Amino acid sequence: MADSVVSFNNPVFASYAAYAGLASMKMMGMTLVTVYHRLTKGVFMNPEDTSFGAKDKGVVRTDHPAIERVRRLHRNDLENIPPFLVVAFLYVLTKPSSDVAVWHFRAFLACRLLHTACYLGGLQPWRAIFFYSGFATTVSMAVQVVAKGSL
Amino acid sequence: MADSVVSFNNPVFASYAAYAGLASMKMMGMTLVTVYHRLTKGVFMNPEDTSFGAKDKGVVRTDHPAIERVRRLHRNDLENIPPFLVVAFLYVLTKPSSDVAVWHFRAFLACRLLHTACYLGGLQPWRAIFFYSGFATTVSMAVQVVAKGSL
Amino acid sequence: MADSVVSFNNPVFASYAAYAGLASMKMMGMTLVTVYHRLTKGVFMNPEDTSFGAKDKGVVRTDHPAIERVRRLHRNDLENIPPFLVVAFLYVLTKPSSDVAVWHFRAFLACRLLHTACYLGGLQPWRAIFFYSGFATTVSMAVQVVAKGSL
Repeated sequence: MADSVVSFNNPVFASYAAYAGLASMKMMGMTLVTVYHRLTKGVFMNPEDTSFGAKDKGVVRTDHPAIERVRRLHRNDLENIPPFLVVAFLYVLTKPSSDVAVWHFRAFLACRLLHTACYLGGLQPWRAIFFYSGFATTVSMAVQVVAKGSL
Repeated sequence: MADSVVSFNNPVFASYAAYAGLASMKMMGMTLVTVYHRLTKGVFMNPEDTSFGAKDKGVVRTDHPAIERVRRLHRNDLENIPPFLVVAFLYVLTKPSSDVAVWHFRAFLACRLLHTACYLGGLQPWRAIFFYSGFATTVSMAVQVVAKGSL
Repeated sequence: MADSVVSFNNPVFASYAAYAGLASMKMMGMTLVTVYHRLTKGVFMNPEDTSFGAKDKGVVRTDHPAIERVRRLHRNDLENIPPFLVVAFLYVLTKPSSDVAVWHFRAFLACRLLHTACYLGGLQPWRAIFFYSGFATTVSMAVQVVAKGSL
């Protein structure tokens, strides 16, 4: 049946779903890292948040290096993970070879996790290498989706 | 038929679609709130925008408290609503109990609307409570999606 | 068969997929524009990136006009393209007239490309006109999705 493609009975879809769920939680987890830094360092962006432990009540700061680093990393996730979530779903619909598809999903998630570690640790050029590898994975799928679609 | 899951004939999908559409419009609506503040206060981020009513032509500012507050809130939406849109769709595919699913969607949208009100009004700890409740709703669905998927 | 809606055999879905893939790549392409400016101008946001050609090693800057312009444009994409990707998919499920649907997708992508050109060139009120036209296209589809769904 043609449409059982979008079903957990389709191994490629089941794999996509698992990696999409993990990538979503990874991205959302960045918020918790930011909150951890804010609470332990007492640095906040809203006056009303300073009651949670800021040294100076009412003083907001947007210049703490560790916090701004997590925020840049989080924004990089926002730029890359939502497109992956949608593009990879459409790619499943192109009925790719199962092995090729699953390795696309694994490569993307692995690259994003390694990119995260390198960003937090300030490791270049590794951060750039993992960024572009994840980027290329999504573009590879997007090109196949556009090729199969009609303008 | 297995695949009628992804159809407005499936009540769980029809509910997901309605809440996904509303959450998308809520997020996009933040742009209109920002534009309202920019036009009424004459504060812009691009030199060419200052012809729309800035007091000082060509002067850009990124420090207006009310505008930066809406932008922080909007960014929080960007961090949370797109993952919800995709994760909740995959969750529908896990064929959850109809009542449980619909209440997940309602809880998420209600939390995000209350989070918005609390952010604009500067109300803590309510903002944090509604943020984490919406966050937990998405994580609950994501865990179920990953559990049903295959790595 | 009801569910062949979500299939490249459905012309409306095939059209959606092509425009969704292009819109995703357009958004991700903004990263490359930012990187181009950073490398040619030697302006970076992370200390470890300054080894790629900054004039002053270790000095980070977040105030370069051309780079911040691309970043504002990229953020505008983040605010508008992910909702389009999901809303347009749900709209395909409402089984719209094929011509009307395809022109929604074409209008959205055209508006975003023209918005990008106007943002990079600093052209107002054209940038605002193309922004609101793309915005209206997504809202039009979202309203139809919510109307067909159930709360």
